[in-house]
Amino acid sequence: DMPTPTLFTEMDTLQQDGDELEWKESARWVKFEEKVEEGGERWSKPHVSTLSLHSLFELRTCIQTGTVLLDLEGYSLPQIVDEGMLSPDLREKISFVLLRKHRHQTKKPIHRSLADMGKASGGGARHAQSRSMNDISDTPSTDQLRNKFMKKIPRDAEASNVLVGEVDFLDKPFVAFVRLAQATTLGGLTEVPVPTRFLFILLGPTGKAKSYNQIGRAIATLMVDDLFSDVAYKARDREDLIAGIDEFLDEVIVLPPGEWDPKIRIEPPKKVTSADKRKSVFSLNELGQPNGAAGGGGGLAEDEEIVCVCGRFCGGLFLDIKRKIPWLLSDFYEGFHIQSISAVLFIYLGCITNAITFGGLLGDATDNYQGVMESFLGTALSGTVFCLFSGQPLIILSSTGPILIFEKLLFEFSKNNGIDYMELRLWIGIHSCLQCFLLVATDASYIIKYMTRFTEEGFSSLISFIFISDAIKKMMGSFKYYPINTDFKPDYVTAYKCECLAPDPSESILSLDWSQLSKKECVKYGGSLVGNTCKYVPDLALMSFILFFGTYSMTVSLKKFKFSRYFPTKLRKLISDFSIFMAIMTFVGLDRLIGLKTPKLIVPTEFKPTRPDRGWIVLPFGKNPWWVYLASFVPALLVTILIFMDQQISAVIVNRKENKLRKGCGYHLDLFWVGVLMAACSFLGLPWYVAATVISIAHIDSLKMESESSAPGEQPQFLGVREQRLTGILVFVLTGVSIFLAPILQFIPMPVLYGVFLYMGVASLSGIQFWERIKLYMMPSKYQPDFPFLRHVPLRRVHLFTLVQIICLAVLWVLKSTVLAILFPVMAGRTGLNTSRPVTTAERRPNRKRSHLRWEL
Amino acid sequence: DMPTPTLFTEMDTLQQDGDELEWKESARWVKFEEKVEEGGERWSKPHVSTLSLHSLFELRTCIQTGTVLLDLEGYSLPQIVDEGMLSPDLREKISFVLLRKHRHQTKKPIHRSLADMGKASGGGARHAQSRSMNDISDTPSTDQLRNKFMKKIPRDAEASNVLVGEVDFLDKPFVAFVRLAQATTLGGLTEVPVPTRFLFILLGPTGKAKSYNQIGRAIATLMVDDLFSDVAYKARDREDLIAGIDEFLDEVIVLPPGEWDPKIRIEPPKKVTSADKRKSVFSLNELGQPNGAAGGGGGLAEDEEIVCVCGRFCGGLFLDIKRKIPWLLSDFYEGFHIQSISAVLFIYLGCITNAITFGGLLGDATDNYQGVMESFLGTALSGTVFCLFSGQPLIILSSTGPILIFEKLLFEFSKNNGIDYMELRLWIGIHSCLQCFLLVATDASYIIKYMTRFTEEGFSSLISFIFISDAIKKMMGSFKYYPINTDFKPDYVTAYKCECLAPDPSESILSLDWSQLSKKECVKYGGSLVGNTCKYVPDLALMSFILFFGTYSMTVSLKKFKFSRYFPTKLRKLISDFSIFMAIMTFVGLDRLIGLKTPKLIVPTEFKPTRPDRGWIVLPFGKNPWWVYLASFVPALLVTILIFMDQQISAVIVNRKENKLRKGCGYHLDLFWVGVLMAACSFLGLPWYVAATVISIAHIDSLKMESESSAPGEQPQFLGVREQRLTGILVFVLTGVSIFLAPILQFIPMPVLYGVFLYMGVASLSGIQFWERIKLYMMPSKYQPDFPFLRHVPLRRVHLFTLVQIICLAVLWVLKSTVLAILFPVMAGRTGLNTSRPVTTAERRPNRKRSHLRWEL
Repeated sequence: DMPTPTLFTEMDTLQQDGDELEWKESARWVKFEEKVEEGGERWSKPHVSTLSLHSLFELRTCIQTGTVLLDLEGYSLPQIVDEGMLSPDLREKISFVLLRKHRHQTKKPIHRSLADMGKASGGGARHAQSRSMNDISDTPSTDQLRNKFMKKIPRDAEASNVLVGEVDFLDKPFVAFVRLAQATTLGGLTEVPVPTRFLFILLGPTGKAKSYNQIGRAIATLMVDDLFSDVAYKARDREDLIAGIDEFLDEVIVLPPGEWDPKIRIEPPKKVTSADKRKSVFSLNELGQPNGAAGGGGGLAEDEEIVCVCGRFCGGLFLDIKRKIPWLLSDFYEGFHIQSISAVLFIYLGCITNAITFGGLLGDATDNYQGVMESFLGTALSGTVFCLFSGQPLIILSSTGPILIFEKLLFEFSKNNGIDYMELRLWIGIHSCLQCFLLVATDASYIIKYMTRFTEEGFSSLISFIFISDAIKKMMGSFKYYPINTDFKPDYVTAYKCECLAPDPSESILSLDWSQLSKKECVKYGGSLVGNTCKYVPDLALMSFILFFGTYSMTVSLKKFKFSRYFPTKLRKLISDFSIFMAIMTFVGLDRLIGLKTPKLIVPTEFKPTRPDRGWIVLPFGKNPWWVYLASFVPALLVTILIFMDQQISAVIVNRKENKLRKGCGYHLDLFWVGVLMAACSFLGLPWYVAATVISIAHIDSLKMESESSAPGEQPQFLGVREQRLTGILVFVLTGVSIFLAPILQFIPMPVLYGVFLYMGVASLSGIQFWERIKLYMMPSKYQPDFPFLRHVPLRRVHLFTLVQIICLAVLWVLKSTVLAILFPVMAGRTGLNTSRPVTTAERRPNRKRSHLRWEL
Repeated sequence: DMPTPTLFTEMDTLQQDGDELEWKESARWVKFEEKVEEGGERWSKPHVSTLSLHSLFELRTCIQTGTVLLDLEGYSLPQIVDEGMLSPDLREKISFVLLRKHRHQTKKPIHRSLADMGKASGGGARHAQSRSMNDISDTPSTDQLRNKFMKKIPRDAEASNVLVGEVDFLDKPFVAFVRLAQATTLGGLTEVPVPTRFLFILLGPTGKAKSYNQIGRAIATLMVDDLFSDVAYKARDREDLIAGIDEFLDEVIVLPPGEWDPKIRIEPPKKVTSADKRKSVFSLNELGQPNGAAGGGGGLAEDEEIVCVCGRFCGGLFLDIKRKIPWLLSDFYEGFHIQSISAVLFIYLGCITNAITFGGLLGDATDNYQGVMESFLGTALSGTVFCLFSGQPLIILSSTGPILIFEKLLFEFSKNNGIDYMELRLWIGIHSCLQCFLLVATDASYIIKYMTRFTEEGFSSLISFIFISDAIKKMMGSFKYYPINTDFKPDYVTAYKCECLAPDPSESILSLDWSQLSKKECVKYGGSLVGNTCKYVPDLALMSFILFFGTYSMTVSLKKFKFSRYFPTKLRKLISDFSIFMAIMTFVGLDRLIGLKTPKLIVPTEFKPTRPDRGWIVLPFGKNPWWVYLASFVPALLVTILIFMDQQISAVIVNRKENKLRKGCGYHLDLFWVGVLMAACSFLGLPWYVAATVISIAHIDSLKMESESSAPGEQPQFLGVREQRLTGILVFVLTGVSIFLAPILQFIPMPVLYGVFLYMGVASLSGIQFWERIKLYMMPSKYQPDFPFLRHVPLRRVHLFTLVQIICLAVLWVLKSTVLAILFPVMAGRTGLNTSRPVTTAERRPNRKRSHLRWEL
């Protein structure tokens, strides 16, 4: 039971070309039909072959009454004709017709073909003709070899040739179905150099060309049908073929003529029932039941991977490692793909924006014990280590809100109680690390098995919403930071000024030219700013908005470009993959062109701690009393809970069934490394890191693979995600070396990056079923998409479920916006990003500058 | 041969509900199938019924062997059962099953039905049961009457009920096909109060429910087939029905199982071959030929309406009038539709923007002999008269470029040669009017019959491009008019100022506080502006861009909203129709909210000529020497040619076949009125008007009608344009009274209107085949849409044709941008709009102000 080769079918029809007869290619099938447009001299789009029932029955009759030659040795045309039991005169004529040259629909309109040779040998003897067919069989013509269509045909394919035509010397049709014992390249018979296995010949009296054509299309369609081609390869006699046709007929789908126009070409479907499935469910009762359920996929993403290994110490961890080791090599070489470049650029920009934002906030919260420099270093270190060794390297680590709030509270507590912050923090880190190890050893991550779609969707929606609202708030912040003077009257430009007035001539110790001072200097030296433009900044707010919105909408449009009709598939895919990069470059260019002083991305350029009075290593002992080392167990517990929740919920979202990950998950291993990094970062005085949901989803989205369509018309399928460690590692190494990239990065305006953030938030929503269900509220039921769950669950119950989710989310949202937030660590924490003011160049830099000034004065 | 009523088919299946049997509606057909989703308790989307061939053959056997009762008087169930030749015991049982209650898929899940009554009469005699079916036939239940689905069923419709189910007491199927002599409402049998004509009953032994279901679907699909339902109504015996099925089978379209998944529900096609056509082409050779040509539509729009009436004076004009008179009444009442409101608003805004732009330019060109006021008045007068009396009231008259340039040259010529401009202009108008009459009388418009698609498309594309480029240029103009200070550093706000310095203290005759003067005043009194902000205006340029681009993109998005899934069809259509209005309101609101002094639309508020030294009537004699009256014939000739070309090419574009206009054209009548208005405007000293292509296309687009879908799943068809005079008249009356609307109109920023212009230009391109062909260049041939011309013309020839068109357009574009322009009046003229500077409030107003100042000084 060897699998039979795939069949490529070509149909040629007999045509009068001037005085001469020739065979002209009129259609071809790899899987779907492509037709030669008569006038257009081009291939039609691949479409489903719509046949008439009549032609199928006529075909059945043809096979029943015509010549059937199975396992013909060599290819001798006369033998076929002999079997037809015709008069010698007719035999000669038919042989002559069959040997006419073949014209294929390729770039070059006319091809050398076997018939050319046949003709060259003159009116020739039968011997010469048959020889011409056999001799040249091993040397495909250059036109055939040059045909690019070959790419679309599987390597092992064989050809079946359908030849139909009307001739004036016959008064009843001549039909032959031939299977060759050996597949043979029959010269120029086929447009591509594929050896021919089957031949179907139908020649008949004139006047019924259309009918012959339809019969030809019917046999061609049958030949590319997986089940029938099997039958054709294995048939022992005519009866087997007839049975194959009957089986096919039993399976066909019938469209009523009043509800469908036969002229419409049906686009190939997204997915076709595989031959195996068709075989296995072959039962008349099952057939033609178009209203059945279309697959499951409704319920929870089952995660069979988390096995609870009770009783054995670290069982889960060892299993995770065991699961990961076989993939070790492929984790690297699978990263070598052009798509990885765009993914790295995208995620890199997300990461450094995050690092700068959180760095700025942390610097504020901890009086620069941890600042932008520490944030960069920590991100690079933790990210690289995690991507190298973790169980799920697609997860991107980042500072998150909960940690930020915790650090803030901890710093205030230490300051008020005279405890050394860095040392206390180190001990919390150590305790938390040990607690993580305990969780790993006891396989505690097993509990996330009980997380339902409800929780998972709620969590990821909430985080996406926060991402979106943050991006918009940061943007709107620039309207506050650069207020617009709406009362400005162009004609009265003479009335607008802002002057620095000396405080009191007598008090002024310095002899300054006050009018030459900048706004900041003026305030610094105690001058007062007087004038109607002092508090306004022209153009920057609106320009920021244009950059922000432009980046977002250009990214969205370019992402969609993949589905447009323009340009070849590969170019479109490239444009779609690099949409974010192109949008950023465009708007960086626009910003440069206009030349306004929009807030730019500034990364630290010197490798030293933000606060000059701290080093790179935090020592564990010496500054705090001994009981602090023990007591820090309690706050560490809170940190552990925060980290455990954040890390594992994000991991569940990343491991969603919809993402089709192959390499399995590694909840225990992930948590182990997060714990290790906690301790390491604490020793180095760097921020703590945990999985960031939205950026991780963006990472996965940018690494999605689709099958390249093989047969013309076949739709690409989502295959899974390019699971590897390379992109993650590159992102974090790049983040580390960003300090040296400062001259390039300084051209990127912050609003452009906020636009990227907005896109990330919106894109991470799009995969969530919850979001699809919300949209259902606004759709009249007749326009609702054909979701599987809508076929099986009453709409009102779907709506109820969604409503409950919405209410839960709304409650969480309100909670997080109120003082109560502090009671709900996970949710509350997320506010960190939220409450941030717009961090702009002008603001981020001063951290150092301001303190510098402070000491000076 | 009366037409048979439309059939509504309902299929009910027998279900076990607890202990009781009941009939549950499982699908229904008006034209396409709608299925009850088992779990979803809802109707599926209407889809094409995909049947299995097997079920059709089984149905054929059923009809062959089962009971067929044609023209049954009344409806007596026992009679059917009797015919089945069953044992009395079975008869009773079948009758019992058939009388179970029916549950329909409507809002209320359970309905009173005839079976309820049957049950109420207990185990009851056969008499009681059959009576219960006849007695209640005239009183449909309130649930039935309240069913909104009734709207989707044609008024004359009759029902056919399909009842299938498995029962345990039968060992071979019981089949009955019944046609009632009189269609009768059988109580709750059908979900809607439609009288039943046909009944198909299939009861069989248990275990084959799926098969019964498929047979039920097959007969239901047959019943709604136009040809088979005809057969069913007229059949004399069983054989007729069998023949009907065979005819249907001969016509069915077959999809191969390997290329199509039977689970996919096929969306109803845009168009279905009508039953008449199917009947007429009924021939096996024609069937199943899906690759044939799909209609013509490739060639030129033939215009059979322009009849050359040679030899008879004014023949064409009289024919035009004759053609228009029958529509006189409908020309008004057809305008009463909500769509008209949006059309009026849209075109009105286009018209006043145009009137203001051209008014400003004309004022500049003619030293205010014709200004904004004259422009408004002229637009209102000409437009109203034209829409009232013309042959093609969908055409919108407007000032156009050619005329503007002509006026400019004429004014300069008059000034340099001491000739009175207004009087000369009057005479040119009179001559031109007479020349127009001559063209009308000789049916000269006939020549436009020779205009090909090539010319027509070239002309309309060029004008659309000019419209687009003008809109963008006007927008970009605001960056020149409000320059942005790109060197502004927020911190050094103290360094920016602009002061007015007195020229020289000794020269100053006035004792002014120079620092209090505005920019204009400063320049006026000879002061000099010193400072680094004098030439900059903050925010306005960027705000203008946001308004411009926002209006454009919001209009585009809302227009597309019609095709989204959200909200009911009517609401979506409303949003789409009013998209421009809503976009304008949104951005006017945004502008108000931000409060910047963006340039606004300012219309004149006083009813008086722009130039104080001219009155409302121009007298023909007295100011110029007598020979001028005669010599003005020559320039009039140029004007006539300009007008004739512009008017008639625009009219051809409006009358395009694609627009499906019903009321015919009126080229001669149009030209007649344009001539009359030329003379009238000349006497009143108002600008001349001629058809404006882009605005006319926009007018038509906003009045397009689509059929309301009747049967569920049927696609709406483009029916034509709401041809009437009302919208045009309203637009121009509104333009006239705009002088009183100034307080409202002054809120509209000019960039918003430029956005509308951009939309008009882009939208007018979208209907042009030329544009579709340009897009083909960028598409790989396999993605190209299935245009009819691509099936019949080789792609390289299509490309060549397009290339020639592009080159011609490019040459015209270059010509129009160079000095050579003046040699090509029609094309050159279009530059008028093009060369215009951005006309802003600040600029438009000064016309008066400046001259006022000039005289004062």
